[in-house]
Amino acid sequence: MRRYFPILDWGRSYTRATLANDLLAALIVTIMLIPQSLAYALLAGLPPEIGLYASIAPLLFYSIFGTSRALAVGPVAVVSLMTAASVGQLAAQGTPEYLGAAIALAFLSGLMLLAMGFLRLGFIANFLSHPVISGFITASGLIIAAGQVPHLLGISAGGHNLLEILTAIWAALAGVNPVTAALALPTVAFLFWSRKRLKPLLKARGVPDVLAGVITRAAPVMAVAATTLAAWGLGLHAQGVAIVGEVPKGLPMPTLPPFNLDLWAQIAVPALLISVVGYVETVSVAQTLAAKRRQRIDPDQELIALGASNIGSAMSGGFPVTGGFARSVVNFDAGAETPAAGAYTAVGMALATVFLTPLLFFLPKATLAATIIVAVLSLVDLGALRRTWAYDRADFAAMAATILVTLGVGVEAGITAGVILSLFLHLYRTSKPHVAVVGQVPGTEHFRNVDRHAVVTAPDVLSIRVDESLYFPNARFLEDTVYAALATNPGLRHVVLMFPAVNAVDASALESLEAIVARLKDQGVQLHLSEVKGPVMDRLKRSHFLEDLTGRVFLTQYDAMRALAPELTARTLAAGRRDTLRAVQ
Amino acid sequence: MRRYFPILDWGRSYTRATLANDLLAALIVTIMLIPQSLAYALLAGLPPEIGLYASIAPLLFYSIFGTSRALAVGPVAVVSLMTAASVGQLAAQGTPEYLGAAIALAFLSGLMLLAMGFLRLGFIANFLSHPVISGFITASGLIIAAGQVPHLLGISAGGHNLLEILTAIWAALAGVNPVTAALALPTVAFLFWSRKRLKPLLKARGVPDVLAGVITRAAPVMAVAATTLAAWGLGLHAQGVAIVGEVPKGLPMPTLPPFNLDLWAQIAVPALLISVVGYVETVSVAQTLAAKRRQRIDPDQELIALGASNIGSAMSGGFPVTGGFARSVVNFDAGAETPAAGAYTAVGMALATVFLTPLLFFLPKATLAATIIVAVLSLVDLGALRRTWAYDRADFAAMAATILVTLGVGVEAGITAGVILSLFLHLYRTSKPHVAVVGQVPGTEHFRNVDRHAVVTAPDVLSIRVDESLYFPNARFLEDTVYAALATNPGLRHVVLMFPAVNAVDASALESLEAIVARLKDQGVQLHLSEVKGPVMDRLKRSHFLEDLTGRVFLTQYDAMRALAPELTARTLAAGRRDTLRAVQ
Repeated sequence: MRRYFPILDWGRSYTRATLANDLLAALIVTIMLIPQSLAYALLAGLPPEIGLYASIAPLLFYSIFGTSRALAVGPVAVVSLMTAASVGQLAAQGTPEYLGAAIALAFLSGLMLLAMGFLRLGFIANFLSHPVISGFITASGLIIAAGQVPHLLGISAGGHNLLEILTAIWAALAGVNPVTAALALPTVAFLFWSRKRLKPLLKARGVPDVLAGVITRAAPVMAVAATTLAAWGLGLHAQGVAIVGEVPKGLPMPTLPPFNLDLWAQIAVPALLISVVGYVETVSVAQTLAAKRRQRIDPDQELIALGASNIGSAMSGGFPVTGGFARSVVNFDAGAETPAAGAYTAVGMALATVFLTPLLFFLPKATLAATIIVAVLSLVDLGALRRTWAYDRADFAAMAATILVTLGVGVEAGITAGVILSLFLHLYRTSKPHVAVVGQVPGTEHFRNVDRHAVVTAPDVLSIRVDESLYFPNARFLEDTVYAALATNPGLRHVVLMFPAVNAVDASALESLEAIVARLKDQGVQLHLSEVKGPVMDRLKRSHFLEDLTGRVFLTQYDAMRALAPELTARTLAAGRRDTLRAVQ
Repeated sequence: MRRYFPILDWGRSYTRATLANDLLAALIVTIMLIPQSLAYALLAGLPPEIGLYASIAPLLFYSIFGTSRALAVGPVAVVSLMTAASVGQLAAQGTPEYLGAAIALAFLSGLMLLAMGFLRLGFIANFLSHPVISGFITASGLIIAAGQVPHLLGISAGGHNLLEILTAIWAALAGVNPVTAALALPTVAFLFWSRKRLKPLLKARGVPDVLAGVITRAAPVMAVAATTLAAWGLGLHAQGVAIVGEVPKGLPMPTLPPFNLDLWAQIAVPALLISVVGYVETVSVAQTLAAKRRQRIDPDQELIALGASNIGSAMSGGFPVTGGFARSVVNFDAGAETPAAGAYTAVGMALATVFLTPLLFFLPKATLAATIIVAVLSLVDLGALRRTWAYDRADFAAMAATILVTLGVGVEAGITAGVILSLFLHLYRTSKPHVAVVGQVPGTEHFRNVDRHAVVTAPDVLSIRVDESLYFPNARFLEDTVYAALATNPGLRHVVLMFPAVNAVDASALESLEAIVARLKDQGVQLHLSEVKGPVMDRLKRSHFLEDLTGRVFLTQYDAMRALAPELTARTLAAGRRDTLRAVQ
C-alpha cells in the first residue's frame, strides 16, 4: 500500500513547521507558474487557460503518488513543443479536434507511464543516453526560441523544424508590426538582464539573499504586469499588438478524452516519445534534488506518479505534463519539504483560474513569447558538443545526429534518430568485445596480454581472455576469433578460454561455444575454460555443454597451464623467481 | 584487389584433380537443385522457370566473390516464403507486377548487402540472436508445410499465417481432388522414407557409402520422374491433377528491375529483413563448413558475394537467393574444393533450362509440394524450445514470441518482433549489471563480495565492485546503487569504485560518475577509483573528471584500503596470517 501511496509515509510526520515551509514554497512557485503555464499552452498551440488547467490536477496527483519531496510537475517547454508537433499533424490549431488530440495525448501518455510503472519498466529511460537527451533539448530549445520570434515581431510564421521556421520568418519580415516589436524586444532584454544581473544587484544593495532570489524569479510576473498595463493604458491592441483576450473564468470541468481508436493509433508513437522524454526529465530532476538532501526516489513509482499526473491533466482538460527543472529547483530552494507543497501550489493555481483570468485580457502574447525565449535559451548547451567530441566520438555522433535531425526534420524524427543511432553504436561496440591472448608473467602465477607484457606461452596451448559477457551481439565474434587463431596456429592442441570478466553466457553464446567445441574436436584440439564465475557455471550445468566439452574447467588460469604445460609453467615460475632473486641480490 | 575477388586467390592454384572433384560435386548438386528450384519458385508464387533462372547467375557471381569453398547459393525455402509474403501484398500472383516486384526485391536486397559489405557492417547479423533465428525458421517451416498441403489435396487455399492457412484448408476440404491426393500422399511418404531409410538400406545391400548418399539425395528427382511419367501416361491432368505445363525454353534474358520509387519504398523493409535473414543463414552455413577443413571465410566479403548474387539473380529475371544449408552440405560432402564447383553447377542448370524444360510439362505441382514439405519439416526444431527454456528464460521468451507472432501474424511481423524483443531483453539485462560490495579477505590482499565471503570492511569506507562496462543503459543504475548506499550508511566518508571489469565508460556513464562525485561531495564523502584499466584511464584523462574527483585513483583495491583504513587493513592482513599459521601448526 505504502509503495504506491508515498503520501502515507510522509503524511504521518507532517508538522506545523513543515506546513509553513511548504506554504511559502507553494506561494513562490505559484507566482512563477502563472506566466509559465500560459506561455507553454501558447507554445503547444492551445488556449492559455489550458496551461492553467494543466497546473492544477497534475500537482494534486503528484503529491499523492510522487516520491520526490521537491518535484513540481506541469507544462514544460520541450514536452509542449512535442505536443504541438504531434497534434499539429492531426488537426488545425484552434479547432476542438486539436484540443481533443492534445487531451488524448496526455491521457494515453499517462496510461503508458502507469503501465510502465506497474511493470517496473523504469529502465526504459536508460535507452535515452545523456548525449541524445542533451542534444535533443538543445535542438528543441533552438526550435522553440525561433518559433517564438514571430510573436515578438507581430508576424505570422511557423514550421516543424528550424529551417522551415527561419524561411517563414524571412518571408514574413516585411509585415513586422513595429509596435509589437517595440514592446517585445525591451521585454526580452529585461528578462535576460534580470536573469543574469538582478540578483547580484539586489544583494549589492543589501537585499537578503532569499528575497533577492524571489524577486529575480518574479521578473517574468513583473514583465507580464507592466506590458499588460501598457497594452491596456495605451490601447496597443488597436495598433496591432496581439493580446490574450477573453480567458474563460473558473475551474476546469471534468473531461473525458475522445475515445477514437484511429486517433489513438496515430498518437501512440508521439505519446510514447513524450512519456519517455518527460520521464527522463522528471527522474533526472527528482534524483538531483533528492541526492542533495540524502533522500531517495523510487524510479518505478515516479512512473506511476507521472502517469497519474498526466491522466489527471487529461481528465481536467489539460495537455501532457512532466516534472520541470526550473520550477522544481525554485520549489526546492524556497524550502519545500514534502509533496504537499505541490498540492498547495495547485490550490494557488486554482485560485488564479477563478480570480486572475479577467486581468489577463490585455496581456500581450509577445510577452509570453519573450518569457519562453529566455527560459528555453538556458537549455541550449552547444558546448556539450565539444566536450563530447573530446571524450567519445560515438557519443558525439549520436548527439550531433540528434541535433541535426531535430533541427532539420523535427522533434519526433530527431529523438527517434538519436535513440536508434545510440543503440546501434552501443550494440556495435559490444559486438566487438576486447579479447586478449594471454601468457604467464615469469616468476608469478599471473597471466597477462601477450601484446602488452613480456610473458611466456606454450606453443600448443592458446589462452584467450574474454573481457565481456557473452551475449548474442558478440557470440559470432568469439567464434571468428577462435577460428582465426585455429587457422594461424597449426600446432595447436589446447585452447583455454579465460572467463574472469564473463558475467553471463546467453543461449546464442552457448551455441557458439558448443560450435567451437565441436569444430575444435574435428581438428583434434581440446577446449578448456578457466576462472568461470559461479552464476555462469550454474547456468552451464543446466545445459549439455559441460558433457560435450572436450577439455576441463579450471578454477584458475594457473591451474590450467600447470595441467596442460606443466614443465614450461613450472620453469617460467622458477625462472622469474631466479631473475627476481638476482635483481634483489 | 584480392580482398574483393577471392577467385584470384584460389584460381591460381587450380589443378586437374581439383577440377575433377569440383565437376563431380557440381553434377550431384545440379541433380538435386532442379526439383528444388522449381519447388521454391512455386513457394514464392512465381512461374517454375524463375527458380531455374535464380540458380544460374547467382552461382556464377558467388564463385567470383565468395570466400566459402563449398557454399551453394540459390532459392531457399524461408527466403522464398518471405518473398511471397512481401510481394503478395503488392500484386496478385501471376501478374507481371508480381514478378517485377520479386525481381526488384532481389535487386534491392542485393544493393543493401553490397552496401553493408563495403561499409563492413557484417555485425548487423548479430542482432538476430540464435533463439530468434531458430524460432523463426521453425515457424516458417510450419507455415511453408501447411501452405503446401492444398497442393497435395488439389484444393486452393492460402493465407499469410498458420491460422489463415489452416482455416482456408478446412473450408476448402470438401473440394479435395482424390486423384491428386492419391498421387501426392504416397509421394510424401516415399520422400520421408527415403530421407530416413534409403541410405542405410542401400548400405546394407552393399552399395558403397558415397553412392548410397548420392542415390538418397536423388530421391526427389526419382519422385519427379515417376510422377511426371504417371501424369503423362495416365492422362492425370484431365482428372484434375495440376501440372507445371509449358515452361519457356532457353536461357534467361538480361532483365532490369522496375525502377519505381514507390515500389522500392514499399519493399525496403522486406528487402532488409530478407537480406539479414539470408545473410545469417549464409554465414552460418559457410562458417560451419569452413571450420570443418580449418578454412576461414570473411564475413564482410560474404555480404558482397551474396549482394552480387542477388543482383545477378535480379538481372537475369530471378528472385532473392541465399546460401542454402542442404545443398551446401551436399556440395561439401560430394567433394567440392573451390567455388568453381558452383560455376559448374550454374552451367548444369543452364543446360537444364535449355534441354529439360519440355520434360517438365507433365510434372504434377503436387510432387513439388511434397518435396518442399519434406525439406522444410527437417528445419522444424520444437525441441529447441525446451532446451532454451531450461537454459535461459529471457532467450526462451524471445524464441516463443518469434514463433507465435510468425505463426499467428506472419513472417515479417515475427522476425521483427523477435529482434526487437531480444534487443530489449539484452538492454534490460545490461541495464542491471552485477555490482558487489567487497571486503578484505583476512590474511590476504584480496577483496571479495561481502555477501559470499567472510570478509572485513571498514565502517566509513564503502567499496563497490562493478562487473560490467559502464554504458548509457546502466549509467543510471550505478547512480541508484551509490545513492542507495549513501542513504543507508550515514557514517560514510569514502566510496571506492573498483573497476577491474570495466572495459569502457561512455559519455553518459561519465556524466553519472561526475554527478556521483558532486553529490557525494555535498555530503562530505570522497569518491575514489581502483583498478582502472589503461584504456579507460586514457579516456578519463581527456575529460574534467579526474580534476573534479574528490578522491584518488588507486592501482589496486589493497592500495586504496591501505590509504583509507590503514590500521584495519594491516590488522586484517596480519590476523588472517595468524589464523593460517595456527591452522597449519
